[in-house]
Amino acid sequence: MRDLIPIQTIKRLPLYLRYLNELLESGKKSISSQEIAQSLEVKCSLVRKDLSYFGEFGRKGVGYDIKLLISKLREILHLNRTWRVAICGVGKIGQALMLYPGLKKEGFEIVAAFDNDKDKIGKKIGNLVVNDIKDLSKILEEKKVEIAVISVPKESAKEVANLLVKSGIRAILNFAPCHFNLPKKVKVSYVDLTAKLMQLVYYLR
Amino acid sequence: MRDLIPIQTIKRLPLYLRYLNELLESGKKSISSQEIAQSLEVKCSLVRKDLSYFGEFGRKGVGYDIKLLISKLREILHLNRTWRVAICGVGKIGQALMLYPGLKKEGFEIVAAFDNDKDKIGKKIGNLVVNDIKDLSKILEEKKVEIAVISVPKESAKEVANLLVKSGIRAILNFAPCHFNLPKKVKVSYVDLTAKLMQLVYYLR
Repeated sequence: MRDLIPIQTIKRLPLYLRYLNELLESGKKSISSQEIAQSLEVKCSLVRKDLSYFGEFGRKGVGYDIKLLISKLREILHLNRTWRVAICGVGKIGQALMLYPGLKKEGFEIVAAFDNDKDKIGKKIGNLVVNDIKDLSKILEEKKVEIAVISVPKESAKEVANLLVKSGIRAILNFAPCHFNLPKKVKVSYVDLTAKLMQLVYYLR
Repeated sequence: MRDLIPIQTIKRLPLYLRYLNELLESGKKSISSQEIAQSLEVKCSLVRKDLSYFGEFGRKGVGYDIKLLISKLREILHLNRTWRVAICGVGKIGQALMLYPGLKKEGFEIVAAFDNDKDKIGKKIGNLVVNDIKDLSKILEEKKVEIAVISVPKESAKEVANLLVKSGIRAILNFAPCHFNLPKKVKVSYVDLTAKLMQLVYYLR
């Protein structure tokens, strides 16, 4: 079944999750698909369809139990365990991630950080000492890293991506403004800030 | 016509643009929709459809002239002028944007930065002095800011968003992990790093 779930649905699930967490914190107990749809500016039929891929856990007239829905979504998204993350490139973006407490709360633990800058190697950021990128493969294996973040400049991004794939990494979050051509088994998610600004500008007439 | 262009198309155009710029830099002159599709992992029919919204500028057998396609895309995306951007929240993410040369190259000029931290107010980052967020409205008007970036912690994000809307801002790029309910005339683009990691994890079975 899972292969049939559209990628757009998978992209929306974390947004539902974040929104439901906010509601739970504010003391709300249940919610209708209409409310989710309105708040997140998604079509109501789409919200219902997205959630229906994973079984019928809403009730007519009552809506969804928020706690139950959160636990279902976390299960679907494989968040009922901790994922081990490495940061490649300890510039401002890399450091922001290393110091952001929200990641660990959601189940992402940064267990290694790498750079090629001698001034950064050996320094402590948060609880982690920055490693030499030369030791990437060895340390990724030692620390059982599953996800890598690329936050190096554009010029070295492709080289780092290839190194990661060679070291067995199957999931990459890339901040560098370039596209990789990697084997299909490797999943890459791109964070392209310039592209985001361009999309905004399109609507500013 | 422009209102009929699907949002998913608008989201892909900046990616085409980035890829074409890379090709141009590497000396390539023309490209087929197949090549774009393969490199960016988008269906070929979709690439052709996306580009056809803006007129017929590919030629059978020859493909697209890269320079022409870039100039068309920049025109469509309103990038043939400079856009004036303000950074709200000069933490690591805000600083990363202020120091990133790629933004100006693509037509986004950061003209103001704000924080509420006394240690940051008055300090120079890049070419800009950080302003007190209390002066937000006044300075946004003075500097004719069109786009605002929210890079403050989650706790103050909604307050800053409301202030921006009151000050007349119509386009917001938000890094805080929360959703805003703002008037429809305001366009918000969300950068949610935890959500991106969650999407990746879904595919790591």
